[in-house]
Amino acid sequence: MNKKPTVAILGATGAVGQEFIRLIEERRFPYGQLKLLASFRSAGKKMTVGGTEYTIEEARPESFEGVDIGLFAGGSVSKELAPEAVKRGCVVIDNSSAFRMDPDVPLVVPEVNPEDISWHKGIIANPNCSTIIMLMALKPIHDLSHIKDIVVSTYQAVSGAGKEGIDELREETEAYLKGEEMVARILPSKSLPKHYPIAFNVIPHIDKFMENGYSKEEMKMVNETHKIFHDDTIAVAPTTVRVPVFRSHSEAIRVETERELDIEAVRKAIESFPGARVQDDPAEMAYPMPLYTSEKYDVYVGRIRKDLYNPKAINLWVTGDQIRKGAALNALQIAEYMIAHGMV
Amino acid sequence: MNKKPTVAILGATGAVGQEFIRLIEERRFPYGQLKLLASFRSAGKKMTVGGTEYTIEEARPESFEGVDIGLFAGGSVSKELAPEAVKRGCVVIDNSSAFRMDPDVPLVVPEVNPEDISWHKGIIANPNCSTIIMLMALKPIHDLSHIKDIVVSTYQAVSGAGKEGIDELREETEAYLKGEEMVARILPSKSLPKHYPIAFNVIPHIDKFMENGYSKEEMKMVNETHKIFHDDTIAVAPTTVRVPVFRSHSEAIRVETERELDIEAVRKAIESFPGARVQDDPAEMAYPMPLYTSEKYDVYVGRIRKDLYNPKAINLWVTGDQIRKGAALNALQIAEYMIAHGMV
Repeated sequence: MNKKPTVAILGATGAVGQEFIRLIEERRFPYGQLKLLASFRSAGKKMTVGGTEYTIEEARPESFEGVDIGLFAGGSVSKELAPEAVKRGCVVIDNSSAFRMDPDVPLVVPEVNPEDISWHKGIIANPNCSTIIMLMALKPIHDLSHIKDIVVSTYQAVSGAGKEGIDELREETEAYLKGEEMVARILPSKSLPKHYPIAFNVIPHIDKFMENGYSKEEMKMVNETHKIFHDDTIAVAPTTVRVPVFRSHSEAIRVETERELDIEAVRKAIESFPGARVQDDPAEMAYPMPLYTSEKYDVYVGRIRKDLYNPKAINLWVTGDQIRKGAALNALQIAEYMIAHGMV
Repeated sequence: MNKKPTVAILGATGAVGQEFIRLIEERRFPYGQLKLLASFRSAGKKMTVGGTEYTIEEARPESFEGVDIGLFAGGSVSKELAPEAVKRGCVVIDNSSAFRMDPDVPLVVPEVNPEDISWHKGIIANPNCSTIIMLMALKPIHDLSHIKDIVVSTYQAVSGAGKEGIDELREETEAYLKGEEMVARILPSKSLPKHYPIAFNVIPHIDKFMENGYSKEEMKMVNETHKIFHDDTIAVAPTTVRVPVFRSHSEAIRVETERELDIEAVRKAIESFPGARVQDDPAEMAYPMPLYTSEKYDVYVGRIRKDLYNPKAINLWVTGDQIRKGAALNALQIAEYMIAHGMV
């Protein structure tokens, strides 16, 4: 299209929705009209984007009339409203998990599998944050030699549980320092029957548990990796863990490839991969840390080292902003790609 | 011996030394005389143990005259004073890393390799905290079927950096909440040229880095596992990481055994292993967390599940108090074993 697209942000008041707005301003994302949508509770509130004041509207099926691109921040509302938006000619880029494994929906990290964008049927799914951050580091390795086996342990920020998760970490920390009891209401996940403090703690539980003893978050890392890499044979052994960090995820990854790789070649491949950066100089104490990668666009990779026993395995450490590359930035990049390629 | 042993605690004022004192009282450890030793800076201070007031003495070679058991809390002083104590007939149980890999020194976790205690030549080394906690969970599995391969990512508490590490986490957290700059002076390690805040952060660096890109802490987990299990062929792929937790370490472990194991058999083996406890009921949200295992004696194991792809591999999650089983308790248990077996 020649005219600038009309864009709707669904869930504009949440952590990811707010980040959509910041990124649209920061990246000068080319939109014609903008609609901010949220639940009825937020409807009527005012918000300024790019110098213009907008009134938040309650999201309904009709809200998407005339909208070209719907940026859905996530949550259960996606499942109901995405098909309604598509019916009205809107392309939905959805950050929820509702459509990710739907065979009719591409699951896309633009630097990793942009080729999947073209076959969309109205909905394009944004992968889970831990998967995006992991695959940004692994794709350049996978391109050098096919990845066979991944063992990954995550150190995930509370922003994955939204604004409420961020507030909870802060409130619990304040209570602890005052010698008061910490009251957990959100984590590990709002919908669960029990809650545990995350301040000065670590919780090996994100999302619900499945029958097989793995959490949904862990199974997302398995299934989404398969879908994005178009290879169901890659063995993934995930342990997903919440840590008291505000907004960057970290991951310790051991990856085994088809053939032995030279570590310098791996470093170069990651360094030249768009959106990934090598930060890896042990002698200078340079390695990624979540405190410093927050609010950055790129995913940072360090501690890149040969396995001590398996010549075909490499150990590495990856950190990336959960709300940006793990959610809003990745979704916006999909929209930018579509605009740049005349796909919307 | 029939009379109760004379015991000296070296480093009585530090985090581990203080824990020795608490544990001696709590466990009614049978001592005749007690000496509290520290650097000249602490000499002269008073401390009450079991209702008796003691004056801290400056540690010198002569301090060990007439001492039967020396409990060394760790640090560089061990290297110099341990041989002096041995010369004077004292058995040294040393928490430093100085003698751990010495072929003349047994490296002991009493539940795992008590048989090594008997061949000591005066010094018995206490393993590194992350190794102790890992092997407490893995020994019962190793007994079912030989372990071939371990991939481990740690979530280590600041207590591993002593009292100063604990104070630093608290001070940085207070500064952050007040909107002030966090000032790092200790972590990742006091002796390093740079320091990074640990509050609301995660640092993939413990102890110094080696030529091979692994940290000393990581290499300890490899080498000490080999020595304690008497098997240099076990492949260990460690990533050791500091997290903002006060005193319990956690570890995500993927372990591959010689033959396929039944998960229920693994659970039973861990449950019946002294000093280990299974806390593993995903439906009830039961799994170990460092906030709840602090000040406990046992090492807690949960998230025990079959690997999704490798039938001979198991994933699990382990948590244990770093100052207790990871340091002072393990050392004291060595002393208790020696007393119970008339070895001192």
